Amino acid sequence: MKRIQYPDAIRGLIAQLRQMPGVGPRSAERIALWFVQARGPQPEAIAQAITEARSAIHACRLCGFFATEELCEICADPSRTEGLLCVVEQPTDILPLEKTSAFRGKYHSLGGRISPLDRVAPEDLRIAELIERVESENPKEIIFALAADVEGEATTHYLVDLLQKYQVQLTRLAHGLPAGGGLESADELTLSRALSGRTRL
Amino acid sequence: MKRIQYPDAIRGLIAQLRQMPGVGPRSAERIALWFVQARGPQPEAIAQAITEARSAIHACRLCGFFATEELCEICADPSRTEGLLCVVEQPTDILPLEKTSAFRGKYHSLGGRISPLDRVAPEDLRIAELIERVESENPKEIIFALAADVEGEATTHYLVDLLQKYQVQLTRLAHGLPAGGGLESADELTLSRALSGRTRL
Repeated sequence: MKRIQYPDAIRGLIAQLRQMPGVGPRSAERIALWFVQARGPQPEAIAQAITEARSAIHACRLCGFFATEELCEICADPSRTEGLLCVVEQPTDILPLEKTSAFRGKYHSLGGRISPLDRVAPEDLRIAELIERVESENPKEIIFALAADVEGEATTHYLVDLLQKYQVQLTRLAHGLPAGGGLESADELTLSRALSGRTRL
Repeated sequence: MKRIQYPDAIRGLIAQLRQMPGVGPRSAERIALWFVQARGPQPEAIAQAITEARSAIHACRLCGFFATEELCEICADPSRTEGLLCVVEQPTDILPLEKTSAFRGKYHSLGGRISPLDRVAPEDLRIAELIERVESENPKEIIFALAADVEGEATTHYLVDLLQKYQVQLTRLAHGLPAGGGLESADELTLSRALSGRTRL
C-alpha cells in the first residue's frame, strides 16, 4: 500500500525551512503549511523581502556592520569621534553598544573570534583590515569589546600582541558585577575579576 | 543624536518574518540576520522554494487535500474504497488518518469548522462541495472525524442535520480513553464519553 505524503513541493519547502536558525522539524512543517495555505500575499512578500535584503545588504567596507552603501551609517557619519575604535566580534554586537549612547567612536567587527575547535583561525577574521585601519586612521585608543569568555579573551590577547608596536592605547571593557546583580548570584570568576578590577572611591 | 538601527531592508525583513506562525520578534531578528549573513545560497533557495510551493500547490478540487494536479494523490487513486467518505476539518488532518492505515476510503476537508467567535459561518466551509459529492458519488457511509471539542461537535451536528435526507450511513470517530492513558489521567468528559460509548466484550 502506497504511503500518502505531502507533495514534493511541500516536503522540499519543509527541508529548506529547517535550515533557518531555531526552526525544528515541527515549526518548519507548520510554517510550510502556512505558506501554501495563506490566502493573502504574505508568502510572496516574504520571499521577496529575503531576496531584496540579500541583494541590498552587505558588510561595510571599513567596519563590517550592515550597510547598503559602501560605508555603513556609522562610518559615513562625520560627527563620530575620530581616533576612537571599538573592536567587536560580530556586526550584531554593534547595536547593543549603540543603545548605551556611551560610545561615540567607530567600530571594527572581526566577523568572529579565534576558535580552534570551530576551525576559525586568525586569517578567517577581519584582522588584516584592522591593521590597515590602525595604520591609515592612526587611532588614539582601541577598545576591545569581545566576549568575556575563554575564546574572546584569547582573541583579545592575540590582537593586543599584534598591535603592541603601534602608538595606540589598547583598552578593554571592564569585567565585574553586572548591574542589579548581588554578590550571592555572581560566580567565582566574575567576583574575582570584580575584585582585581576594583576602582578607587 | 541619531539612533543607529539595522538598515531598512533588514527591518522590513524582520517585520515580514514575524508573520510566520510561531515566530516572535527575537526569532524573526535571528532568522533575518542569518538570511543576510549566510555565505551559502540557502536564503535564495528558501525564497525560491516558497515561491515554487505557492504556485505548485493548490487544494484538490474534490477533497481539498494538497494537490499539484486537479485531483490529489488520494482522489486520483482508483484502488481506494468507493462509497466511503471521511470528513475532516483541515487538509492537514488527512495525513494522521493515513498513518493509521485503518482507512482506505476517500476524504473531504471542510477547510475549518463552524465558529461564530472566529466569524466562520457554514458558507465559509466546503459544505456545498460535500453535498454535491454526496449527490454525485452516492456514498454508503460518511465518517465524521472532526475535533472532539464544542465547535467540532457543533459542526458535526450541523452536517448530520443537512445530510439526514440522503440514503447514507452517518458515523463519527469513537470518543473514549486515549491509548496508554490510565483512568487517573483522563478528564471527566473523556471518562463520561468512554462510559456512555462502552462496547460489549
